[in-house]
Amino acid sequence: MLTSDKIIVQIVVDQCEKHKIKHIVFSPGSRNAPLAIAFDENKAFTTHLVHDERCAAFFALGLSQELEEAVALCCTSGTALLNYYPAIAEAYYRSIPLLILSADRPEHLINQGDGQTIMQKDVFNKHVHTSISLNDQVHSENEIMEAQLQIAAALSVFANAWKGPVHLNIELEEPLYNTVLKAKNYAKSLENKKDDKDQNFAFFSQAEAILENKKIVVLCGQMPKNDRLERELDQFSDNTNVLVLVENTSNLQNQKYIHCIDRILNQIDENDSSYQADILISIGGAVVSKKIKTFFRSAKPKFHWRVGAEFPKMDTYQCLSSSLEINAEDFFLKLNQLKFKKNSLNYSGLWKQKDILAKDKIPEILSEKTSLTDLCVFYHLLNHLPDNCILHMANSSVVRYCQLFDPIQTIRYESNRGTSGIDGSTSTTVGAAIANPNQMHFFISGETSFIYDSNALWIRPFPKNLKIIVINNSGGGIFRIIKGPDNSKQRSRYFEAQHSQKVSTIAEAFGLKTECISDFKKLKNSMADFLNKQNNSQLLEIHTKAEQNPIDLYSFFNTIKKL
Amino acid sequence: MLTSDKIIVQIVVDQCEKHKIKHIVFSPGSRNAPLAIAFDENKAFTTHLVHDERCAAFFALGLSQELEEAVALCCTSGTALLNYYPAIAEAYYRSIPLLILSADRPEHLINQGDGQTIMQKDVFNKHVHTSISLNDQVHSENEIMEAQLQIAAALSVFANAWKGPVHLNIELEEPLYNTVLKAKNYAKSLENKKDDKDQNFAFFSQAEAILENKKIVVLCGQMPKNDRLERELDQFSDNTNVLVLVENTSNLQNQKYIHCIDRILNQIDENDSSYQADILISIGGAVVSKKIKTFFRSAKPKFHWRVGAEFPKMDTYQCLSSSLEINAEDFFLKLNQLKFKKNSLNYSGLWKQKDILAKDKIPEILSEKTSLTDLCVFYHLLNHLPDNCILHMANSSVVRYCQLFDPIQTIRYESNRGTSGIDGSTSTTVGAAIANPNQMHFFISGETSFIYDSNALWIRPFPKNLKIIVINNSGGGIFRIIKGPDNSKQRSRYFEAQHSQKVSTIAEAFGLKTECISDFKKLKNSMADFLNKQNNSQLLEIHTKAEQNPIDLYSFFNTIKKL
Repeated sequence: MLTSDKIIVQIVVDQCEKHKIKHIVFSPGSRNAPLAIAFDENKAFTTHLVHDERCAAFFALGLSQELEEAVALCCTSGTALLNYYPAIAEAYYRSIPLLILSADRPEHLINQGDGQTIMQKDVFNKHVHTSISLNDQVHSENEIMEAQLQIAAALSVFANAWKGPVHLNIELEEPLYNTVLKAKNYAKSLENKKDDKDQNFAFFSQAEAILENKKIVVLCGQMPKNDRLERELDQFSDNTNVLVLVENTSNLQNQKYIHCIDRILNQIDENDSSYQADILISIGGAVVSKKIKTFFRSAKPKFHWRVGAEFPKMDTYQCLSSSLEINAEDFFLKLNQLKFKKNSLNYSGLWKQKDILAKDKIPEILSEKTSLTDLCVFYHLLNHLPDNCILHMANSSVVRYCQLFDPIQTIRYESNRGTSGIDGSTSTTVGAAIANPNQMHFFISGETSFIYDSNALWIRPFPKNLKIIVINNSGGGIFRIIKGPDNSKQRSRYFEAQHSQKVSTIAEAFGLKTECISDFKKLKNSMADFLNKQNNSQLLEIHTKAEQNPIDLYSFFNTIKKL
Repeated sequence: MLTSDKIIVQIVVDQCEKHKIKHIVFSPGSRNAPLAIAFDENKAFTTHLVHDERCAAFFALGLSQELEEAVALCCTSGTALLNYYPAIAEAYYRSIPLLILSADRPEHLINQGDGQTIMQKDVFNKHVHTSISLNDQVHSENEIMEAQLQIAAALSVFANAWKGPVHLNIELEEPLYNTVLKAKNYAKSLENKKDDKDQNFAFFSQAEAILENKKIVVLCGQMPKNDRLERELDQFSDNTNVLVLVENTSNLQNQKYIHCIDRILNQIDENDSSYQADILISIGGAVVSKKIKTFFRSAKPKFHWRVGAEFPKMDTYQCLSSSLEINAEDFFLKLNQLKFKKNSLNYSGLWKQKDILAKDKIPEILSEKTSLTDLCVFYHLLNHLPDNCILHMANSSVVRYCQLFDPIQTIRYESNRGTSGIDGSTSTTVGAAIANPNQMHFFISGETSFIYDSNALWIRPFPKNLKIIVINNSGGGIFRIIKGPDNSKQRSRYFEAQHSQKVSTIAEAFGLKTECISDFKKLKNSMADFLNKQNNSQLLEIHTKAEQNPIDLYSFFNTIKKL
């Protein structure tokens, strides 16, 4: 096959293939042409093209999230690269493997007045696992070997339990477009140093005694679906001393668990010691609920065991006692082998009892509402979602509203909760939908976040298996539902992002077929119709009543509280 | 007046006022609320609101470019900040003073699982002049004094001859919305250490002898209009040994100078030593022409004097002999006081003669064309622009096409040539138009760059004194006019950014009034009509013939070459 005449480019491509990278997202440019040529000619890779680098990086994140494998990004030199940064930070905090391949000018031309030239080397240092710089002056066997090993070491991060973004900056001299027939394979991986000794032996030998007679909370953060974990945790939670708190983004559903953390914390008296835990076991990534952080920070459990390879030093609840760098399914497998006595309390039952009251009451509270508010829309929307789909939630109020309702069996929940930014949720979803074309994907967004990332609609081909619902509450509804500015005159200007931009016209400009609801009476029918797979509309804009939204939400919480 | 109850916020605001910052661009958020409240209440500041932080930073750059003063930016914590980076890099390479005020969580919550939290401290380190981190635990007199001095030192960068971006990261604890009556002014500036001794004494004492009998080129990069420089350079160039090469972005027009560098280099034989210079004096920022870099790098002048405070070590032509950190007007004032003999050659006349031939020929070549190509559109467009306006040029092919025609007297030319990215030209222009509402601003962009930054159209109020012309050649025409891929099958996919997105529908979705031309016969009338101030259309989309564009351009260069 044809390839670039630059040996360094051939090494990069061969190493990517060797390390099982299959998807690469390009943004058009000139300096990265040798990489585009070489990847394009190699049939092992599927290439995608996204113009706006900010979208491209979130799109790659969506591919990686869905495929659960490392995905590569490639752009030209200059500020193009900097546009990747928001998604790189998100990938870093979600431990998602992204390979950033940035084309650069040769070092002697940096800061010498050439166009599209910045200091790219190590520019993402704070938020990548490894960052290396390569150049195309690689010819001798020694130079080739050195480059192979450098790249193999960088790519080996993707085989670690703790994954994340890796940056390869590649300095390329002109001419850029020359090709040769590929004559050699430069793939070379490092030997796997498997460390099989169990570093947690001491921990498990003491755990049995500690678990005895204790009230235990397992708090689950964001994670992909995980069948083994599901089974082990189900068994562990058969013990009535064990309360499992999950969020929809944990993708762990079970009748025994509590799925709506903020809702239950609103119902219980946090100062009542019978609710407080002796042991907190935390697994997974970010937790959406702010209240649970406050709960554990004020009523600190005696032990907090953090389980998982990622961010082992993270002490979210300010009471970390052990950090166990093993995966959660192995952890619970080991706990399930221990024999520790339950105490006489039905700790999980105490919580669950309250939870069931709220869950049962919700249809009654919400089905009689007749006003087009955010809360109502989410209730009906979630009720109408078809089975076996993937639901992508934008940040700010969307992800919080969705937490108020028990997650739907068969549905997977995704959201950019690494950094919780409003900047790339649409592009991430488009990437995920492209990666997994056989399932329907639904995306719910507020209109501010949606317009922010409207260039996601510029991606081609635009996935047919994606339907977008935009709740337009005229700007930043989040500030009406979190604790914050009450009557401040600055509220609407600086905190809420108020504006009157219609979203569907923007989507139409990018070629999407849209529908719009601004009348409560039409909500149920129009929504059901839109969500139907046969309907080929791609975006539904729902205008909710900005002033009524917080009133409805507070009244909901108040009703629940009294149960 | 009211202000935030946080003393550190009061100090920041007072120091900004003391250091003459008048404009501040906010993006909505919660963590930056104390700053929003305090700046908003103080009548010394004009506040702007831009939702998308990438646009916000370019918008601030446009304000600063136009006002020639430091402008502040303020956003919430997390990835919001990272979206500033492309504009910060542009500001860094154009030496434009921007103050970045990023709100952050308190340090003990970084990497502890809180939302919208990344490692903000020093995150822009490579591309800012100073970066400091502050927190709100400032109460004692000593703590106050230390904060005052730290901030004063950071802001003093804006008084330096070499300006650029400065980053203040401010850690703020909750509660965020409390206010107090302002009781004290915390402004405090550092003593000015003026260093009046002339460090260039040795240089000027030798310059007279060196200049004797030499062929001298003054090459002018990007700079704002500068009356004093205009006068001094006019006098210096009376010497016929002196050739002045300017670009439209130099904003230095004079009948004696050569204004179209690529055009003239296409006409002369670069190997003919009579054209080669003995001394190169370079002033200003970036130079658009790539050919002039090649010209001087291959036929190196004996001396290259770089003049100006910015990037003193930059050696663009690989022959730097002296770097003089004084401003260009003072430099030429001093040269004008020297007496050095001309040689007998009319060096500038040799070049100018060729230049006049091309200039005279252009109307003849282009007025008879009847096809809607980029070149034709630029010719007619520049002919129809009204006097006394400001022309903003997007990057890639637009800025290069505009260099082919002598700049128009009374028009100022602006472009993001610091990093030459396609990412923020529209937002920059919107900022400039807002800053200077009494002049008409015109913005020419390709459609890829325009869609990239379409969130610029979301800025409110949208300036009424701005008209946008988008040349839609269906994607990245730049790769058809620069040396590059000839018949590569990857060309259209990876290098050219081909797409068929209509631009005017997007602009309309954001509320702009648009017009469209896709027929050559209508070009002149429709364009004249659109450019008329009375016409209230805001965007004109012109569809040019992608295949014909490079043919037209090469034929133009060939005709000029033979003159």
